[in-house]
Amino acid sequence: MARDRIKPRNLRGFRDFLPSSAQARQRIVDIFRKAFELYGFAPLETPALETEEVLLSDMGVDANKQIYRFSDLENTKVGLRFDFTVSLARTVAANLNRISLPFKRYQVGPVWRYDKPKRGRYREFTQIDLDIIGVAPFEPEVEMVAAVARGLREIGADNFVFRVNDRRYLGEVLESLGVEPEKAKDVFRVLDKLQKQGEKKVRDELTGKLLLQDFESALEYERMQEVAVSEQAADGLLTATKDASGLAKYLAGFLKRIEQEGVGGDNLVADPSLTRGLDYYTGFVCEVDIRGAEALGSVGGGGRYDDLLGRYSATPLTGVGMSVGLDRLMDALLATEVIAADAGQSTARVFVTVFDDSMRAESASIARMLRQAGVAAEMWLAEGNKTGRTLSRQFKYADKVGIPLAVVAGEDELAKDPPSVQLKDLRTGFGEEGKQSEVPLGELVARVKELLD
Amino acid sequence: MARDRIKPRNLRGFRDFLPSSAQARQRIVDIFRKAFELYGFAPLETPALETEEVLLSDMGVDANKQIYRFSDLENTKVGLRFDFTVSLARTVAANLNRISLPFKRYQVGPVWRYDKPKRGRYREFTQIDLDIIGVAPFEPEVEMVAAVARGLREIGADNFVFRVNDRRYLGEVLESLGVEPEKAKDVFRVLDKLQKQGEKKVRDELTGKLLLQDFESALEYERMQEVAVSEQAADGLLTATKDASGLAKYLAGFLKRIEQEGVGGDNLVADPSLTRGLDYYTGFVCEVDIRGAEALGSVGGGGRYDDLLGRYSATPLTGVGMSVGLDRLMDALLATEVIAADAGQSTARVFVTVFDDSMRAESASIARMLRQAGVAAEMWLAEGNKTGRTLSRQFKYADKVGIPLAVVAGEDELAKDPPSVQLKDLRTGFGEEGKQSEVPLGELVARVKELLD
Repeated sequence: MARDRIKPRNLRGFRDFLPSSAQARQRIVDIFRKAFELYGFAPLETPALETEEVLLSDMGVDANKQIYRFSDLENTKVGLRFDFTVSLARTVAANLNRISLPFKRYQVGPVWRYDKPKRGRYREFTQIDLDIIGVAPFEPEVEMVAAVARGLREIGADNFVFRVNDRRYLGEVLESLGVEPEKAKDVFRVLDKLQKQGEKKVRDELTGKLLLQDFESALEYERMQEVAVSEQAADGLLTATKDASGLAKYLAGFLKRIEQEGVGGDNLVADPSLTRGLDYYTGFVCEVDIRGAEALGSVGGGGRYDDLLGRYSATPLTGVGMSVGLDRLMDALLATEVIAADAGQSTARVFVTVFDDSMRAESASIARMLRQAGVAAEMWLAEGNKTGRTLSRQFKYADKVGIPLAVVAGEDELAKDPPSVQLKDLRTGFGEEGKQSEVPLGELVARVKELLD
Repeated sequence: MARDRIKPRNLRGFRDFLPSSAQARQRIVDIFRKAFELYGFAPLETPALETEEVLLSDMGVDANKQIYRFSDLENTKVGLRFDFTVSLARTVAANLNRISLPFKRYQVGPVWRYDKPKRGRYREFTQIDLDIIGVAPFEPEVEMVAAVARGLREIGADNFVFRVNDRRYLGEVLESLGVEPEKAKDVFRVLDKLQKQGEKKVRDELTGKLLLQDFESALEYERMQEVAVSEQAADGLLTATKDASGLAKYLAGFLKRIEQEGVGGDNLVADPSLTRGLDYYTGFVCEVDIRGAEALGSVGGGGRYDDLLGRYSATPLTGVGMSVGLDRLMDALLATEVIAADAGQSTARVFVTVFDDSMRAESASIARMLRQAGVAAEMWLAEGNKTGRTLSRQFKYADKVGIPLAVVAGEDELAKDPPSVQLKDLRTGFGEEGKQSEVPLGELVARVKELLD
């Protein structure tokens, strides 16, 4: 009754991370978590699935199109989270009596976007999210940028650049150009494509000059026609995005304080062209790039959303958040050689061989001793080992999975006074050429720590 | 153009974890990760969404019914992962040329089951998963149980009990009772309900005596009628589940070795009634309970699945895995008072007040100094602070979010030689009664560490 074999394939836009890369990802997440916790940010967990009603609230049309939506078996309309901010707003609104303000939290996990998969763009990706609810500008903005910068520096990525802007400044520019305030969000969403699509295409879209065939649907086309601003307004806006001088008064408080926190110089640029695509931002917006990997896109971004909480709660609450995209960041760190590609398959630092099946207990006891001392140790698990004849296979495995040291506990050495083992440095070779020395059992932990330093 | 306010509700069976509980959950995950890494297990990441074909492979009917399935916008049939084991098997099969055997990995994250929500049973819950691919019994089993036991002890939960069994033993019993081998999986799935539903109901189900109304569908009823075994076989099986003596020969190797690893006595029971519901187990199975919280159900379990990889790969590979259910474990640890209910909203250990808005830079510099020394410090972010008049509000906040110490940097103390601050121990009260002392800035870090010890 054998069934057909199933092709072990992933969905398009979805990826596995084998231990060699998952280890590096995990290390980076841990560094950010530690950096955030140093500022008092605590973890929050919200579900991956939300009601459609909650998800579709305030993201803007481009975002709404990308949500994985479906009906569950009870015909409830549900969707996978698109980001963490909407869920955060829902949670805060639902728990106002259980939380204190300011509410500072971080959340790490996957989000899902039904996007066209391509290099560097996945349908599932991991966000490292940081938010502060309930405090007016700019101290929360300062603290978040400082905390993310601390994480990046801790990783070794000093080559970061925060680009900052304030949507209120762009709003003022639009007003001065005679554009109605209701059009602002749509204009921002178009302007957000400036870096990717260039000035010509953005100008055409802003002025309604694009043809129907450039849109995915007639509805979308009609909608953009309604949004269209005058050629003069489009020109004025595009000019304003090149001159940061008008922005200074909006960001003065922020720029002064963030430099005190050690983020300035090469790490900070005021950029009036920055809008961020999502509708819910109301003031400060920022993005962070890795210098030398700008072509991969921003590795993070965020902004202030002072109206979002009002969608769920009668109590109006301000908010500001930032998100680091782990997948993009990894790509950028690899491209700029801040991290190496392969972390190895094992977390162990010492490999404990089994000389002979009859001596498994001795090897197990050595592995326990190492672990007790906090040294990660992997023991050879397979059986069928006879008087050292599988040792070379064991060394080869240990070397391949990236374990630097190996212990051989042979009968003769263990019978010595004091009982001893062979300690082999696999980094110098796992064959005959590998450096090897006899170490008394009582000194093994100290010797291992010395070699690993 | 105000829209209606959206009710900030969660889906049924889904929960938020506010920082007060998320902190404790995170701490427990970190402890397990560290325990697993001490044995050389490395992280693996697989997607939350898989093709339906991969998901439905080998779980058994009960499990298949519970998968969140839907068609995406390209009409691809997809589903949310039900557990991590199936995804692991798919990944290993797809990456045989990139991994070395044995393949030891852990994975932590949510899984989804469309189950009837009730107390202690959620539609989204977190699994902490541990597997070893490519090694025959029993060393992998020993290592996994030892690693999980190490994590539990590190948490402070010495009150755990592993119940272990081997499906091959139950298979032998069934054979001796004349039951065809093809029926074994279905019999195991019924037997798995023994603890929850009692002997009478299980016996009725085994013998096909249950009525149509006891099943959710006619199809399921028909299917169970086909599986039905004789009354004699059912009795024989139920008798065998009460006597562990026949089991010894199957588990001898395991029991001997696991005691060497320090898991025995009160922490280990051979239990011939244990089957685990999933179809893919082929030999060793185990569950772990927290003594005193057995009524909440097992906090973990697993087993050997030597045929699962063959569903995806021409290369046959053995496997064994265990999974700890974080949600159940938390409930059990709270019920047995191993952990306390509320960890507080902030991760900070010191709160740095702002005496006056004009002195923000001084407070910020103190917060930076503390963080630099590795002490988590939260600074008051709101503005509108005038000559100490908001201090009591600040203390109140710090106390409420669970920060034990507070620093007040007033103008007078800072002007002293050496510059000093007030250090208040909020654990002794955040009003006048709270213990407070003047500390020179240069000694602040040392003093804080002393008080926190």
